[in-house]
This record gives sequence, structure tokens and C-alpha cells, in this order.
Amino acid sequence: MSERVAAHLAGRKDDILARLLTLIRFPSVSTDPAFEAGMRGAREFLLDRLRAIGLEDVRLLDAPGGQPAVFGSWSGAGPDRPTIMIYGHYDVQPADPLELWHSPPFEPTIRDGRIYARGASDVKGSTTIAIETVAAFLAVEGGCPVNVKLFLEGEEEVGSPSLTALIAAHRDILGADAMLSADGGGAAGKVPVLNIGCRGICALQFSLRTSKKDAHSGKVGGALRNALHEMARLIATLHDEQGRAVVEGFEAGAAPFTNALRAESASLPLDEAAWYAQFDAVPFGDPAYTVRERTTLRPTVEVNGLWGGYTGQGGKTVTPAEAHAKLTMRLIPGQDPDQAQAAVKAHLERHVPPGVALDFQFRQGGTRAYTLPAEHPLRAAAAAVLRREKGAEPAVMRLGGTVPITTIFKEELGMDSLMFGLATADEDAHAPNEFFRLSSLDEGLRLWPLLLTELGRMRPADFRSEA
Amino acid sequence: MSERVAAHLAGRKDDILARLLTLIRFPSVSTDPAFEAGMRGAREFLLDRLRAIGLEDVRLLDAPGGQPAVFGSWSGAGPDRPTIMIYGHYDVQPADPLELWHSPPFEPTIRDGRIYARGASDVKGSTTIAIETVAAFLAVEGGCPVNVKLFLEGEEEVGSPSLTALIAAHRDILGADAMLSADGGGAAGKVPVLNIGCRGICALQFSLRTSKKDAHSGKVGGALRNALHEMARLIATLHDEQGRAVVEGFEAGAAPFTNALRAESASLPLDEAAWYAQFDAVPFGDPAYTVRERTTLRPTVEVNGLWGGYTGQGGKTVTPAEAHAKLTMRLIPGQDPDQAQAAVKAHLERHVPPGVALDFQFRQGGTRAYTLPAEHPLRAAAAAVLRREKGAEPAVMRLGGTVPITTIFKEELGMDSLMFGLATADEDAHAPNEFFRLSSLDEGLRLWPLLLTELGRMRPADFRSEA
Repeated sequence: MSERVAAHLAGRKDDILARLLTLIRFPSVSTDPAFEAGMRGAREFLLDRLRAIGLEDVRLLDAPGGQPAVFGSWSGAGPDRPTIMIYGHYDVQPADPLELWHSPPFEPTIRDGRIYARGASDVKGSTTIAIETVAAFLAVEGGCPVNVKLFLEGEEEVGSPSLTALIAAHRDILGADAMLSADGGGAAGKVPVLNIGCRGICALQFSLRTSKKDAHSGKVGGALRNALHEMARLIATLHDEQGRAVVEGFEAGAAPFTNALRAESASLPLDEAAWYAQFDAVPFGDPAYTVRERTTLRPTVEVNGLWGGYTGQGGKTVTPAEAHAKLTMRLIPGQDPDQAQAAVKAHLERHVPPGVALDFQFRQGGTRAYTLPAEHPLRAAAAAVLRREKGAEPAVMRLGGTVPITTIFKEELGMDSLMFGLATADEDAHAPNEFFRLSSLDEGLRLWPLLLTELGRMRPADFRSEA
Repeated sequence: MSERVAAHLAGRKDDILARLLTLIRFPSVSTDPAFEAGMRGAREFLLDRLRAIGLEDVRLLDAPGGQPAVFGSWSGAGPDRPTIMIYGHYDVQPADPLELWHSPPFEPTIRDGRIYARGASDVKGSTTIAIETVAAFLAVEGGCPVNVKLFLEGEEEVGSPSLTALIAAHRDILGADAMLSADGGGAAGKVPVLNIGCRGICALQFSLRTSKKDAHSGKVGGALRNALHEMARLIATLHDEQGRAVVEGFEAGAAPFTNALRAESASLPLDEAAWYAQFDAVPFGDPAYTVRERTTLRPTVEVNGLWGGYTGQGGKTVTPAEAHAKLTMRLIPGQDPDQAQAAVKAHLERHVPPGVALDFQFRQGGTRAYTLPAEHPLRAAAAAVLRREKGAEPAVMRLGGTVPITTIFKEELGMDSLMFGLATADEDAHAPNEFFRLSSLDEGLRLWPLLLTELGRMRPADFRSEA
């Protein structure tokens, strides 16, 4: 029956693309309150669409202080079929630096078979594929192969700070046998790839102060600490020359690196020269690991933003009193986000000289790394689909980024997840000129019906872990 | 006759204050083209005022690409009296960070006997004293004790980039026996102080690039250089732990530090504990030197601004491709600005790792340090005034900041300078909540008539150096 559904979807490509572009035009930047209207617009569009395709119980789910999730369900497959939570998110990263975009970030522009816009790849494209797949089953077959719960989050790009509370508040309607995520790439392209895990994350922002006020560099230069000098010295202590984080206690609890992990990571070859060439950059990082290992199986400490002093036109002869930095840490299985954050904080406090004050602003929402167990039916179903469509055994890969929902749904609802998004790693997510391939849209609209059909052959009991 | 002039000025304090406040209200920020109207307003106000007090040849002097200077002269004292160039500047530093001001920076507010506003201390207050002194001599006595050329610069706060060209273009009218500067503090307060020199300056701005584009820290973290990490490492190489610049070749040509310099510096005691207490900071800097020596007789490399990555609300998981820094270097006698700048540039290039690109933006207008010769009549005249008014031998001090005009007028017109401004070091010039004391305004209006009278006792020949 997935053939009829795929044919239906293929015949409605223009409508589906139009809806995706409409969704993209809402500037749903969750991190910045200035974009509240864009967030609201995206939510209302999705609520309307879920109602229009025939889902039940369509509504917003929320928790105090957080961004609401859009929810809708369909239970017509009955109790003998598994219930699959389908996950996507409607929020996007900030678009700046705006001046580097070749077309406006929230005015999607199609060039060379690609949709250029903030959120096109991460993750409105794959979210649209998931919704339209469900819509087509309901329209063509009058029902889905599985029971479905659509859960479209609104704060993925800020680390899902209130998601745990939101789940706690709506636990009664969120039960499912497994979760299928439109976020997390790997399904698109010729090489069959199974995305079975991701790094975790925690974040830290801090300010450094050397004096109670800015001063004239001519009057104090040479005798008063400059906050920018101190910030630079402090940031420089976080890594060695090969970029390895050298923060005591940061890797506490991390699972040991094994030959099995190395072999799994090598199942998907990477042309390292080409990888660096895309950035016009030279090789870098811990030489004991491959690039894929460095970016998926090793933890990092990254400074995402750094600022202080005069940054406008021309010059200003100031000795700045304060400087600021935003950090995120990527975590591997076994690392605890709170412990990793505390280790970085302790490192900074240990390395700051006397008379320099640090002020920490913690962000909530630290997330552990996630791994889909090897024997899980989600893996079997997705492997079967990929094998058939792409003609080879899928390689196994892990995502270097973080999909907090995978960890949170496991921790809160005992539910495992498969990431089956159609985004690819070269689409400049989180950067200027983000894009999503029209070919990936087509491919997703073939693969997702197959996957739901495959999952519909299973029974709820197949999802009960014996572990 | 200076008594009558001083009495005249004392009787017109309200008018003089009102004119100073009007001048301050023009937001004449020379570094930022957005403030062009403020620059123009300040110029027009000054042109009107110089004409109103009876100066001759009142006009703007300019050079291509620069900010015009306001000029006016009076030659009624005749060829047997010296001609004194009186210097001030009408441009000011940027006011940001605006949120730290307790009252708007361009709406002067009088609290506790102080005028709070950007430019009040640096240097519209002392510039007004100079103008009003000349005005009073002309009004009361019908003439000044000396011939006068008023030269009010418009680009002091950006390092006087076009001043040399401006002087070259107007050399015919700029001849004088010596220059008396309203910029450069020291004349105010109970302790008699002669300000006899200043540090030089040069500037450098650069960008650092690690990749051709920003990237998602989840996708590249651990394998791609982060521009902020590299910038921090690079800035950290500029100084040792005690804040000493460790840049090879930076001090080339610098005059050796001598016991005579140490003694001269010690002639004006400094309460170092109180100095650090004003900043709520701990002692810092080269322990081989006193705070006064560190801030006036040692060169510095200062980062005035540093920025890169995401600096807005919330977080963004980006691995930034570029970072930026603004630097200024304070120079001591003997250092060449171009050579010092080149040494810093070479240091940065030497310390940057492979694959990291630096792009330098040089600012023109480097200035050598300046010293008024020990036997110069300007010193004798000012010392006599201060001795009489404050009842003690003046201490000799050097300014840690830079008054480019002193060097430029020496190099271009062979003219020595005395800085006789009424600003004091605690007035937060270049910082939020800059202020100027009303008592300094009163004091300046007593001291400047005395100084012009004292200079009027000299003959032009007294100013011909035998060196």
C-alpha cells in the first residue's frame, strides 16, 4: 500500500513544496523573544495543517516558560499495531550574520534544485515530509499502518529547556512504542545510512570582570588588567594545540573508546581531504582519531560567541572592564551534562587570576548522548527499507550534533528513537545560506511511507525491550 | 591686567557654563559617520563663537578625507610679542556602552558640582576655558598679552589621521612660537603639576579566519578550528602573566629607562592602593615599575575590542569561522609608531597556526611620544603661574595617553607644546559617566589668564631653541 501513497505524494509535489515554503517563511527563531510572532505563525500553520489532514486531538502542549509543542494523533490502526511517536521541530536557529546570506533567510529561494532558507534543512524540510506522509496515508488508504502521534517541538534549537516539564504535564497522551525523528540526518542520498545515536550537549555562558568600570587605555594601560586579555588567556587554557579539551574531570564517566566503536564509525567512509576542502580549512584535531570519530565519538568544548570592549566603527582607546563568552560542550555516551558543565566551570575558576571575577549564567537543558540499541526493531525496519531502496547494507553512523528529544523521550517515557531525517551534513544548518535539496524532499516522500509500512508489520510486543 | 580679566570671567560664569553645555550637546563623535550632524553642529557653534569674540580669519581648515579644524587668530599684540597657538579639540569618543550611563551622554547633567556628559572632560571643558580666556582679554583689555592662533581639531579621538596633510595645506597661516594645549590634564587641583609629555600611539585592527564559513558545532566540533579559540590563543601570546608585552622588536629604539626619569616620575606621589581601589581592582603590571611609571613611561599593547561568533540573546551552536580584534599600542620616547605596529603584526603572523588567515586593517595616524624640553620658556611660564597660585614648586608629570598634536606640531612646524588642560585623571574620559568639575572650570578661568600674561612677558626670541 505504500506504493499508492508514494504515488499520491509524487503527484502532489507542488502543493507539498508550497506548504513547506509557507512554513519556512515564519521566522521561528526560538532563542530570541523578538521572533515571537514567527514562532506563533509557525505553530498556527501546523495546527491548521494537522487538523486538515484528519488528525485527532490536535492542540498545543506546553509547560511554563517554554515554547509550546504542536501535537496531533491518530489511533485508527488499533491496539495490535505499534504506536509511533513522530518527532519534528518548528523552531530554527538565528539567521545572523545576515550580511552573509545571498538571499533573505526567511524568504525561501530555489536555486539549482535547492531551497535556500533558515530552517529548510534543520528541520522544516524533513518535518514536512513526516506530516505529508501521514496525510497521504489518511487520504489514500483512510488510515496509517501504525498508530501515530505527531509531536512538533518548539525549542529544539535552544536545547529543549522545558521539554521534560512539558512531557511530565502531558504524560497521559504521550505514550508510544517508539519514536521516529525527522531530525537527525542520514536517510538521504545514494549511500544507505542508519543514524543510531548523537552526542549530548550542555551550555555555559559567563562574564569576566577585571575592574568596576571601563577606563582610558592611556591612563591605565600597563597597570590595570584588561578584561579582553584575561578572557583570551582563560579561553586559551581550555584546549591544547591540537584542539583537545584539557579540562580536568570533563570526561568523567565517559564510556571507553573501543575497537567496536572504531569499526562501526569506519562503516561509513569519509573523504577527509574533501571534508576539509568544503571549509577551505586545513586538517585539525586529535590525531589519535579520524575526523568522523572526532566529530561523533569525542567530546568537545566550543566557544560559540566571544565579545567585549569597543566593536563599532573606527577605534576607541578603552581598557575594557568586562568580557563575555558563550560555550557549548558536546558529550559522548556516559558523560553527565551537569558534571561536564561543572568541570568546565571549575576549570575556568581555577585558571582565572586573582582579582578577576567570573559570573556564570547557566542554561538549562543539558542532554546526555543517545544510542539506539543494536537489536531494536526501529533499526531492523529502517535497515530493511534502506537495503531495498538503496541496494546495500546500511552503514551505521552517529550524529555529531544533539537531538535532545532522543535522550529525553528515553529518560522520561522509556521510548527509543530512530533519527530518519533527510537533511545532509553539507547543507549549512546553523550557518548562512542554509539549504535543503528538492531531491531530498522527493526521496523522503518515498522512504517515509515505506518505513511506516514496515513498522506496521510489527506488533507492540516487538518493542518491549528485554534489557 | 590678568586680574581684571579673571574678574570679568568670574562675573560671567553662568554665560560661560551655558556655552559649554551647548557645545557638549553636539554629539561630535568623530569615529562614526552616523554622528556627522553632531560634528557639523559643534563646528558651526565654534565658528560663530570665535567670530563673536573678535578673532580674525575665522574659518575651517581641512584636508581631503579628514575632519576639518576650526581656526581663528588675533595678531594685535604685534611682532615683539610671542605668537601662541592654542589647541583644543571638538570631537569626542563614542558614548557606548550607553546602558551604563546614569544620564544621557549628550544631555549634560549637573550633579554634585560636576557636569556629566561625553566630552565634558575630554576636552570641551578645557577648550571652552581657552576660548573664554581669549574672549575676556579682547573684551576687557581690547587685546591679548600674546598673539593668538586658536586651532580646534576635529579628529583627535581617532588619532588625527589627516592632521599632517591639513598642516601641510595651511602651513602659511599656522606659524607660531609655541603651542599651548587645552588637552592633556594636570593644571587642576591643589597640587601644582607640570605636564611635560605624553606617550605615543599606534593602532591595528585584524580579522582571523579559520574556515570559509561558519559551521554547526555538532557537525564539525573537534575537527575544525574554531576562530574564537584561535583568536584567544593568539591574543594570549601578546603578554606575559604580569601584563608585560612580549612582542619581539616592539621596544626597538626606545630610550633607556634612567634614574633621572624615575626621580622625575616620583616627583608627583601616587597612592597606589587608592588608585586600584577606584577600579575595585587588584594591583597588576610589571613589578619593576611603579604604577605611574607603568602608565606613563612603559609601552603597552592593549586589545580595545574583541568579537566573533554569536553574541545575541540565548545560544547558537556555531563553530565561528572568523574573529576580530582592535588593538592600540602606547609608545614611549624613541619608539617609532610604524616599527611598533610592524612588530605587533609580525608577532601575530608568527604565532598563528597553519591554515589560519590574518587580515590586517591598519589605521593611519601613529604618533610618537612627546617631551617638552626642560629649558623651554613654556615650562618656565607655567611653573611661575603654578608656583604663585598653588604655593609650591610644581611636580613634573607625563601623560599616559596621547595628544597627537604635540608630536605633529613639533614634527611639522618645529613648535613645542605645553599641555595645560584642566581635566583630571579620575573623570572617566573614554568611559561611561564622563564628567568635568565645575571647580575646574573656575580654576581654569583663573590660570589661563595668568599663563597668557606670563607668556606675554617673553619675546619671540626666547622661543628659538639653541638645540
